[in-house]
Amino acid sequence: MQTLWDERYALRTDNIGSSAIRELLKLTSLPDVISFAGGLPAPEVFPIEQFKEAADVVLTEMGDRALQYGTTEGYQPLREMIARNAAKYGIQITADNVLITTGSQQALDLLGRIFINRGDRVLVESPTYLGAIQAWNAYGVKYVTIPFDDDGMRTDMLEARLRTGIKFIYVLPNFQNPTGVTLSRARRIQLIEMADAYGVPIVEDDPYGQLRYEGDHLPPLVVLDDEMRAKEVPIYSGNVIYTSTFSKILAPGLRLAWVVAPVEVIKKLVQAKQGCDLHTSTLTQYLAYEVANTPWMKSHIHMIRRVYRERRDVMIKALEENMPEGVQWTHPKGGLFLWATLPKGMDSGAIFEDAVEAKVAFVPGASFHPLGGGENTMRLNFSNSKPEMIREGIKRLAKVIKANLK
Amino acid sequence: MQTLWDERYALRTDNIGSSAIRELLKLTSLPDVISFAGGLPAPEVFPIEQFKEAADVVLTEMGDRALQYGTTEGYQPLREMIARNAAKYGIQITADNVLITTGSQQALDLLGRIFINRGDRVLVESPTYLGAIQAWNAYGVKYVTIPFDDDGMRTDMLEARLRTGIKFIYVLPNFQNPTGVTLSRARRIQLIEMADAYGVPIVEDDPYGQLRYEGDHLPPLVVLDDEMRAKEVPIYSGNVIYTSTFSKILAPGLRLAWVVAPVEVIKKLVQAKQGCDLHTSTLTQYLAYEVANTPWMKSHIHMIRRVYRERRDVMIKALEENMPEGVQWTHPKGGLFLWATLPKGMDSGAIFEDAVEAKVAFVPGASFHPLGGGENTMRLNFSNSKPEMIREGIKRLAKVIKANLK
Repeated sequence: MQTLWDERYALRTDNIGSSAIRELLKLTSLPDVISFAGGLPAPEVFPIEQFKEAADVVLTEMGDRALQYGTTEGYQPLREMIARNAAKYGIQITADNVLITTGSQQALDLLGRIFINRGDRVLVESPTYLGAIQAWNAYGVKYVTIPFDDDGMRTDMLEARLRTGIKFIYVLPNFQNPTGVTLSRARRIQLIEMADAYGVPIVEDDPYGQLRYEGDHLPPLVVLDDEMRAKEVPIYSGNVIYTSTFSKILAPGLRLAWVVAPVEVIKKLVQAKQGCDLHTSTLTQYLAYEVANTPWMKSHIHMIRRVYRERRDVMIKALEENMPEGVQWTHPKGGLFLWATLPKGMDSGAIFEDAVEAKVAFVPGASFHPLGGGENTMRLNFSNSKPEMIREGIKRLAKVIKANLK
Repeated sequence: MQTLWDERYALRTDNIGSSAIRELLKLTSLPDVISFAGGLPAPEVFPIEQFKEAADVVLTEMGDRALQYGTTEGYQPLREMIARNAAKYGIQITADNVLITTGSQQALDLLGRIFINRGDRVLVESPTYLGAIQAWNAYGVKYVTIPFDDDGMRTDMLEARLRTGIKFIYVLPNFQNPTGVTLSRARRIQLIEMADAYGVPIVEDDPYGQLRYEGDHLPPLVVLDDEMRAKEVPIYSGNVIYTSTFSKILAPGLRLAWVVAPVEVIKKLVQAKQGCDLHTSTLTQYLAYEVANTPWMKSHIHMIRRVYRERRDVMIKALEENMPEGVQWTHPKGGLFLWATLPKGMDSGAIFEDAVEAKVAFVPGASFHPLGGGENTMRLNFSNSKPEMIREGIKRLAKVIKANLK
């Protein structure tokens, strides 16, 4: 609806994301609704005591610095910690390869800002992460999509798409949001080689990499890419821009994430970030460093994995026990989400209101498809509800689906 | 310099701000340099103990919410507090008129995002705030400038400029950054009336409004604008978008600021912000609310005023005692900066290296002029150095200027 201000002042709408889904999701926070819609971590796993201790230490010992302006690049010890942790996986980087961002949403926005000219084509999985679509729509992106199967992005369909001219490839290799599927090792290699051959950079979004509940860890694309080149170059200057976050392993309320990239890309991102918010909160960076740079951190991540693994298992079992024939779902080996597919012809958007009435919520899958499709799919989050709630919520959802089957 | 990544991937540079000044300012953090260059608050006035107590209360009583994702609009009690405080000045707003941003730099970026189409003309004072120039350059703005005198923006020169087609007017009415001058009451009225007549909105940036060291408080433009309309409308829906920050009255390391605007503008900003960083840190919002929503806050602001008033007075006295004839400076009634003008023909940029060698720093005034000019001016910050350092620093600076006078 055009409003007075729109008319009088011609406010732009082309460079801000759509809000339809946002309005929809407001319904999911109604009381008594069991929501599988959000992507929220469980508050039960927040390390509140550690943050209390950290706040005491940080404010007592370095309050004058923790409350002052900081550099756009981020808190140096935190950047160094991230570089050290990355080095454990075998990638050659220093703090200069790391930028701290205000959540990984900002990383996506800044990447849009330095890469995308209006009309540029970006290759994404379909479905893909909603926040990325929202961030890049603001820069006038055109999406090119590639389907997925149980091994992730269909890399056999990659080359034809790269031949059409692609600015960058966006991929979530681990426990993808929204589908929960993981890109296999063979496909990772294929993706890297093909991107390199076509000179197209890869943006690797890895919020859940440490939240694996079964199977072996697979190296990030940035590591595999570095391995291909490591003989010649001392510091990473390859083809992959990697981003991850403290939101899922510490707390999302910090708004803390990071980018690992070649130094020249980091420099451009820093310039862009300076205009956006000057720098990320000094205080939250000091706190995160204090909490995360400890041996305790490892056990904390193990604990989160235990809690979420149980919830995933409970959700899958509840689906098996309650869903009518014809409903399918993925079996994610980690992360926060699984992806359900309803019988063809059924529209998850159309049953959304019934579901909310029955006090259960999800995100209709169409929202994750930048070029349309996916009407019979839905994303289900299992991290934010306790096991008994998951059982009850899936029962309610199955009932709604059955009622709409006829 | 074009780098490999620039060449290979055509990274954009048109939509990120310039970094020349940034590189320059790195020199100012060298050891022993007395820096009047930054815009930093004094760490001595940070309420460290209050933040320690607040962290304990917030994490103990509501850690699960303070560490979780929040809404893009901001923490509701904080928005309500800001609306209540604004109401004291007589403006009719509710929390719906308030958006919390990640520092006021983000407010400027978001305003650029919803207003500016490439080539749009924005009217700014010359000199004006560097962060605004940087934020809006990213959107392809064209600047139209208006000069200032001791009463602020020369509103007598406004109409001719408005006739050329202006998207919005950007103004810092109180203790302007960089000049320190204040827009008089008569000119405020004139500015509002003329902007209204031409249907051009005003962006009012007011980071220092509460830091007045002498003279009477002048109402913000948004309040004066509301008074003109208050008879008809219950909730503010006028022509001014106001932004202020906690950076100068609490701590900049929080990255917390806010926008007050008509609800329909707030809605657009919220959509834009969602794509930029989802929301501002929940934790820092909870902490700021806990600290600021107390009667103590008033005495805290009084204390800051005392400290900064002394530093301003010390700097002005030192200038009087040390500067050679022909050097002039403003007498700011508040804020963090004063503005010095060297004799015509002298270039503050050219003597900058001499100054750093003599262990004193400032920002060359040319940086604040979006269309050039101001080579013989400089910005001097008085909030971040203790009185004895100010005396010593101004002595050093006077020596450098004298040496370059010949």
